[in-house]
Amino acid sequence: MQVKDMAEGALVRGHYLITRKELIPFSSKPGRFLLMHLADKTGEIRAIVWEQGEELAAQIATGDVVAVEGKVALYRDTLQVVCSSVMKPLPGQYSPEDFLPASRRNRELMLTEFQEIIGEIADDDCRSLLEAVFVPDFLQAFSWAPAARSMHQAYIGGLLEHTLNVVRLCQSVADLYPEVDRDLLVTGALLHDIGKVEEYKVKAGIEITDVGRLIGHVVIGHDRITEIIAGFGGFPEEKALRLRHMLLSHHGQLEWGSPKEPQTLEACILHHCDNLDSEVSKFAEILAAAGRGERWTPYDSRLGRSLFAGDGDFFEPAVDTAGGSERN
Amino acid sequence: MQVKDMAEGALVRGHYLITRKELIPFSSKPGRFLLMHLADKTGEIRAIVWEQGEELAAQIATGDVVAVEGKVALYRDTLQVVCSSVMKPLPGQYSPEDFLPASRRNRELMLTEFQEIIGEIADDDCRSLLEAVFVPDFLQAFSWAPAARSMHQAYIGGLLEHTLNVVRLCQSVADLYPEVDRDLLVTGALLHDIGKVEEYKVKAGIEITDVGRLIGHVVIGHDRITEIIAGFGGFPEEKALRLRHMLLSHHGQLEWGSPKEPQTLEACILHHCDNLDSEVSKFAEILAAAGRGERWTPYDSRLGRSLFAGDGDFFEPAVDTAGGSERN
Amino acid sequence: MQVKDMAEGALVRGHYLITRKELIPFSSKPGRFLLMHLADKTGEIRAIVWEQGEELAAQIATGDVVAVEGKVALYRDTLQVVCSSVMKPLPGQYSPEDFLPASRRNRELMLTEFQEIIGEIADDDCRSLLEAVFVPDFLQAFSWAPAARSMHQAYIGGLLEHTLNVVRLCQSVADLYPEVDRDLLVTGALLHDIGKVEEYKVKAGIEITDVGRLIGHVVIGHDRITEIIAGFGGFPEEKALRLRHMLLSHHGQLEWGSPKEPQTLEACILHHCDNLDSEVSKFAEILAAAGRGERWTPYDSRLGRSLFAGDGDFFEPAVDTAGGSERN
Amino acid sequence: MQVKDMAEGALVRGHYLITRKELIPFSSKPGRFLLMHLADKTGEIRAIVWEQGEELAAQIATGDVVAVEGKVALYRDTLQVVCSSVMKPLPGQYSPEDFLPASRRNRELMLTEFQEIIGEIADDDCRSLLEAVFVPDFLQAFSWAPAARSMHQAYIGGLLEHTLNVVRLCQSVADLYPEVDRDLLVTGALLHDIGKVEEYKVKAGIEITDVGRLIGHVVIGHDRITEIIAGFGGFPEEKALRLRHMLLSHHGQLEWGSPKEPQTLEACILHHCDNLDSEVSKFAEILAAAGRGERWTPYDSRLGRSLFAGDGDFFEPAVDTAGGSERN
Amino acid sequence: MQVKDMAEGALVRGHYLITRKELIPFSSKPGRFLLMHLADKTGEIRAIVWEQGEELAAQIATGDVVAVEGKVALYRDTLQVVCSSVMKPLPGQYSPEDFLPASRRNRELMLTEFQEIIGEIADDDCRSLLEAVFVPDFLQAFSWAPAARSMHQAYIGGLLEHTLNVVRLCQSVADLYPEVDRDLLVTGALLHDIGKVEEYKVKAGIEITDVGRLIGHVVIGHDRITEIIAGFGGFPEEKALRLRHMLLSHHGQLEWGSPKEPQTLEACILHHCDNLDSEVSKFAEILAAAGRGERWTPYDSRLGRSLFAGDGDFFEPAVDTAGGSERN
Amino acid sequence: MQVKDMAEGALVRGHYLITRKELIPFSSKPGRFLLMHLADKTGEIRAIVWEQGEELAAQIATGDVVAVEGKVALYRDTLQVVCSSVMKPLPGQYSPEDFLPASRRNRELMLTEFQEIIGEIADDDCRSLLEAVFVPDFLQAFSWAPAARSMHQAYIGGLLEHTLNVVRLCQSVADLYPEVDRDLLVTGALLHDIGKVEEYKVKAGIEITDVGRLIGHVVIGHDRITEIIAGFGGFPEEKALRLRHMLLSHHGQLEWGSPKEPQTLEACILHHCDNLDSEVSKFAEILAAAGRGERWTPYDSRLGRSLFAGDGDFFEPAVDTAGGSERN
Repeated sequence: MQVKDMAEGALVRGHYLITRKELIPFSSKPGRFLLMHLADKTGEIRAIVWEQGEELAAQIATGDVVAVEGKVALYRDTLQVVCSSVMKPLPGQYSPEDFLPASRRNRELMLTEFQEIIGEIADDDCRSLLEAVFVPDFLQAFSWAPAARSMHQAYIGGLLEHTLNVVRLCQSVADLYPEVDRDLLVTGALLHDIGKVEEYKVKAGIEITDVGRLIGHVVIGHDRITEIIAGFGGFPEEKALRLRHMLLSHHGQLEWGSPKEPQTLEACILHHCDNLDSEVSKFAEILAAAGRGERWTPYDSRLGRSLFAGDGDFFEPAVDTAGGSERN
Repeated sequence: MQVKDMAEGALVRGHYLITRKELIPFSSKPGRFLLMHLADKTGEIRAIVWEQGEELAAQIATGDVVAVEGKVALYRDTLQVVCSSVMKPLPGQYSPEDFLPASRRNRELMLTEFQEIIGEIADDDCRSLLEAVFVPDFLQAFSWAPAARSMHQAYIGGLLEHTLNVVRLCQSVADLYPEVDRDLLVTGALLHDIGKVEEYKVKAGIEITDVGRLIGHVVIGHDRITEIIAGFGGFPEEKALRLRHMLLSHHGQLEWGSPKEPQTLEACILHHCDNLDSEVSKFAEILAAAGRGERWTPYDSRLGRSLFAGDGDFFEPAVDTAGGSERN
Repeated sequence: MQVKDMAEGALVRGHYLITRKELIPFSSKPGRFLLMHLADKTGEIRAIVWEQGEELAAQIATGDVVAVEGKVALYRDTLQVVCSSVMKPLPGQYSPEDFLPASRRNRELMLTEFQEIIGEIADDDCRSLLEAVFVPDFLQAFSWAPAARSMHQAYIGGLLEHTLNVVRLCQSVADLYPEVDRDLLVTGALLHDIGKVEEYKVKAGIEITDVGRLIGHVVIGHDRITEIIAGFGGFPEEKALRLRHMLLSHHGQLEWGSPKEPQTLEACILHHCDNLDSEVSKFAEILAAAGRGERWTPYDSRLGRSLFAGDGDFFEPAVDTAGGSERN
Repeated sequence: MQVKDMAEGALVRGHYLITRKELIPFSSKPGRFLLMHLADKTGEIRAIVWEQGEELAAQIATGDVVAVEGKVALYRDTLQVVCSSVMKPLPGQYSPEDFLPASRRNRELMLTEFQEIIGEIADDDCRSLLEAVFVPDFLQAFSWAPAARSMHQAYIGGLLEHTLNVVRLCQSVADLYPEVDRDLLVTGALLHDIGKVEEYKVKAGIEITDVGRLIGHVVIGHDRITEIIAGFGGFPEEKALRLRHMLLSHHGQLEWGSPKEPQTLEACILHHCDNLDSEVSKFAEILAAAGRGERWTPYDSRLGRSLFAGDGDFFEPAVDTAGGSERN
Repeated sequence: MQVKDMAEGALVRGHYLITRKELIPFSSKPGRFLLMHLADKTGEIRAIVWEQGEELAAQIATGDVVAVEGKVALYRDTLQVVCSSVMKPLPGQYSPEDFLPASRRNRELMLTEFQEIIGEIADDDCRSLLEAVFVPDFLQAFSWAPAARSMHQAYIGGLLEHTLNVVRLCQSVADLYPEVDRDLLVTGALLHDIGKVEEYKVKAGIEITDVGRLIGHVVIGHDRITEIIAGFGGFPEEKALRLRHMLLSHHGQLEWGSPKEPQTLEACILHHCDNLDSEVSKFAEILAAAGRGERWTPYDSRLGRSLFAGDGDFFEPAVDTAGGSERN
Repeated sequence: MQVKDMAEGALVRGHYLITRKELIPFSSKPGRFLLMHLADKTGEIRAIVWEQGEELAAQIATGDVVAVEGKVALYRDTLQVVCSSVMKPLPGQYSPEDFLPASRRNRELMLTEFQEIIGEIADDDCRSLLEAVFVPDFLQAFSWAPAARSMHQAYIGGLLEHTLNVVRLCQSVADLYPEVDRDLLVTGALLHDIGKVEEYKVKAGIEITDVGRLIGHVVIGHDRITEIIAGFGGFPEEKALRLRHMLLSHHGQLEWGSPKEPQTLEACILHHCDNLDSEVSKFAEILAAAGRGERWTPYDSRLGRSLFAGDGDFFEPAVDTAGGSERN
């Protein structure tokens, strides 16, 4: 049962993500019961475990997915699940897609497009490098990864979608500027964010890994291709340096986390296409979330402004139920 | 005769731009002679007027083009033109193209492409506005204007070339994001820099006009379409507001001279495509100027760095002739 | 009845501003009731509509003023109005002054002073421009407008009061610097914020209009005088350029929303006098709000500091009534 | 004889400031001669001491004023003084006014105005403090001091002129805001820059003293009034704190060298009036220096822009005489 | 009884800090009762005074310490003290150490170390100055003061501990750089934060004094040594200037509140050692607070990031008891 | 013969660095002669090759060292070498130490100290890693490398000297904070700048390599230890992550070129000790360069200020010989 369908009295059975976990003392007897918040991608609800809450609490953590059975009850005008069973699920019993949004675009079609682009690379060094990076297992992980934790394309398949967009934009720029080394540029575009596969961990939410926080996808990606190139032996030195530089500098400015700013034409183009797609995607998502009827989106602190939706639909405000059900 | 062809003893006849003008006292008699620097797009040379230099100096100014006759002589190892005649040219006797570089792309072909893009706009309001702005006289001026005074595409036809590039990039983004209003975006892209026709004055060099400095092309362009739209009568209000906002916000950030930051999806895209083309063009021009054989371009203070040219050709350093001709 | 006078059991009748609107499900039966917050300039109170709340909710919006009848009751230690009738008012039934604070200074006297200043302008071009801008209808709207939405002089008449202050300061500077063009300076000062008449919409609160957000008062004001000057025909060109530049640059810095920084002496003075009055007004308002007895004002996030009130009066803290009425 | 009047063959006698000093080896014999640049407020000229240059060089320093006798000669198209005598002047033989520009306003009248302002202070504490600071000797030094080393009012009497301007502006603000403590504000304005008397040393140029560089006029001024107030005994504590705070915070922002930002109404006003006068003075001086006929002033790196002079007079460029005297 | 030991039904007797104070109307009768929050260094608890709350409220203030008697009761699942007596304590009845954390290091040992360092100063001027500053009364106050209000070493003895650390680091740098004037450096290090004795007031919490806010410890400390040196008579001028400069510039940058940036070698070293100890102390305290079992500390808004604790212990979350005790 | 010893008529024989190279046309016949500037660490001098200059110019480049024979002559008051032979030296014929300054500290003693520090590391993982990095060949290169190209410790042995200083400071901090992992900290300090061995190329001047510019020593160093650790197999994962993070974050801020900011206690300490030594070294070098007798160093654009030398020695100004030798 999805969270959005839980009504008073309903019997609950399913997998949910724990987003809060707390032990509360009973007021009338010793000991503590367990209060959780459970979520899936349709919503979030309170849940209570009266018996053996302390034992259970020691085995689960915020961010875990659990298999729950119970019944929905009303407490102080709020629905909550009173749990009769909370268990750890076996591997494969649930899918991140139950908890996370996914790209609107078809992942298989995107993968096909991705591999066609690799196949069109004429430069043997570049194509060999791409084939060595995007081996099937890695490509599988790559196609599930999000492009960010929030901000833009923060959903399953988001990294693949963002990468394809950046490649398409880079190709458009190459059409305008004949001096661009097209194969080098496309290769860099395909590789630029591969470090995000290690930076994010997608379980039931998007988390940043320790290596993601302490090292970061810019350097992780750079290291991966440096290592593969070293293993190749005869990879041309300047070409390797240009590709490594493109990965390191793709954030464009030191204060955005690139240890070097772009110093080649292709690195310049890659940075701006990456930035363009991230920004446009962010605008598009904020406007899409605005909903029906509101001329302006809510203030967005990342952008420092509201966006103008104009003739949109009515915006559904988040309901605050505090203190409203007193009449009965 | 072009400046680069002037050798000792050559007879000079042609139009040249005055880049320096100074009266120097004779050391052996009262009075002053006139020292000028004369330039065309191939180089610059000293020139001397011994007789009636003071009268002449009162009639000409730095930045003027003059018709010169004279002969090349050697003075302290440096070539200079000793002028026998310096006159103001009649209108039409010379062309800015003699003094300024021009776009490598064919202006007529670009104009045809530009008008085809206007013709493809399906939205009647947008197309009518474009036709009202780009009347033949204005389009003529537009097609001669540079995109900047320095920095990027600072040459005849540069504004047209830059505008086409921005339109092409905007179309690529619209291909990726179906929620974009394509006609609105392309219309904004075609119009975004029209204020530069008034901002720059192209005589023999590129100068910024008073209105360019005190008001600026962002507001000039906005004012022009606001005025035309007002004359139309029935132009839809929100569409007008969106277009005006796109022109005002296309620099993207307050500190870059836009009085408003982008608050619509199309304004966001226009800004980033404009920025992308300017930056890529700047990189491409710096690298093209680097010349043969230098792995790194000279330090560029606009970028705060050198660029990596790698396997380029040999770079010809500017020759400093001070104090070298002592042996004879 | 003003909100501050509402006590338990009082009968309510009057016009109030809706500051919150929400439909809450009944806990014991299907359907939803309407919860609102109602405000006038003396305070804010909860209000409930038990019957036909959903129909009513579809007709009103946050920011509307409504005519309400009802009775004050106590719910969980909090007063709320139980409404028996909620209706949309007819035009003219209420005044913004019921909901908004107004300048402490007499508006009629300020208007007289304003017109005297125009009358003292000796330069015919400037005086004609002022008379063309400040026609009676516009002057009426101008005299009601606030100077800001918050921050400083955010009250009815605030724009007129601020403009007069800026004029007075500009005149003081002109007394010190004889090279100033006094008429030009005073004209620019009188005009500098006219765009705010379109930027703000004063109903029962101060709102920013779409054109205010997307274009902004700096450019709106500049456009208005540009258009009027264009209609004049013979207005001297440099004088027009100087006035337009003063309006465009009066925020002083790009990052404060002026697309050009001051480049004339009068533009420099106007910016600094505008800034001075805004800042002093902000300080004065924060200190006035601090109340009796507190040596320091609360931390102000706009300023990034507290202000020192020293020997002031006692400060009345906002009462938080959560969980306090348990003994009875 | 003033430098501007020195022509070939003239006999020179007068006091001049040494702005450059260098020993040059003779090319045809052992030893070195002395090359100096000499200046007064009308210009600068080369000067040579052939005999005993090395002994003389050990006794004089750049920045010294010397009494010179000699004759003007032409060397490579440049005038230079061949000195027959260079001596250190006795005290009182010359005045800084020979080398430095002075305020256009009459210093005696400014002093009278200054003392009248002190006399009008009704608050006994404030007036007593002012009288204790501005004792005749200090007032004398104060009236000679410049307001800055460059930038604005960098001339004799500039500090007095700037201080009077700031007082006048503060009084205008106090007229607009009745909640201002007028006596406190005027007292702070009179005192705000007294530390500059120690910060600058005016000999024949304006130099910054060691204490000026290492401690600075903001803290020097604060220390001086703190010390005087401490000596008074019964000065009211809060009044003292408010005055000390005004002096410390008058630069308005930490990055402009105030260790505290304004936290009282009077400190806020003082800072903005100080800033206003400095900025307006800077604009006025740049425009005044622009000269006849130039529509735009040269690029000013302090402001980051040129200023618009419009209908001004012709601008006289600095003459560069390099390599022009070849014909004779 | 410490707050952490208060259980339902316990009799309370002790001194507590008032951290909140509010009068709440009775819901069933006229008048108001007093609600307070009481704290010691082990925790915080609600407290109620039913009788004569209004009279009592007029005599006490937030930040006061009071002697309380009463009994712990449960109200809506939350413990609160129902007070039978609330009185102002006599001087000496309680110690700040009951309310504030203190340095982990022994204050007496630190004082001994501090005085040994003074004793080792070979330079007579420096040592005399130190002895004149650190007279017994001042040293006593110095040894109680915190190093900050929050951020780092914000506890009793923190200033002494921080000062010793800075001295030790300065000595290490002096070991590496023989050109350092070691006595001058150590003297500056011992004195650099003496202004904090006046800047903070330690009662039962750490407050900033008026003089701390309006003048600040940087200038207070500078003024104190300037005054003492002035009283000495023969203190060498340059040495005095160097010491004063070290105190004024020890924050290192204008935007960090130093009115001058370091301009001597010793001032440079002092600033960096001060900064190093503050930053390391901040990191160490954040990590120590993180507790058992959490790999990452909570986001710290001062640092703009979380810190990596790795293999730490389990982190005890602050318990939010809202709405959890409903079953009984 | 060292450059400083070259007097008119001296016979020259030695190795010199080419710092300028230019072909100048003969004024009296066809063809060009070669003008060079030659330098060693004692100075720089002009040099002329009259015969076959064009052939020679094609074989040498600015930055090369050449073996020169010739004779010193005087040309226009300036000394120059008239070369009779210019040849490329064989490997080993000269040492970088002839052209570059070197650390004042004995390199052998520093190496011994360095290896003792490694030997004292108790943690086996850390010590093994250090031994694997600092194999004899690498240690040799490390001990020759500079710490920077300019700014601080830009001399042979500078990297070793700087690294030892940072280690000593880190040890001092570890003495103050017992929670520090001392072995981890010292290991990170020893390794933090190893990437500079690849970043700089020391021939006769210090140059930055392509990989230094495009990748940078921060990432180069990180990659090296990542690769070695990967080869080890059983290196504890968290320890590896902490060390890698220390190298990546040691610049402390994104805008200083670290792609991650310090997130562990040891990374925080390493950054601050690195920064401290760099800054103190920069101050010390600027002051040492100031010379005798100048109270203030010249304005330093890196620091944005002058430094106070106080009672120093006399400062020798760079001699400008232009136009001084006319009397003979």
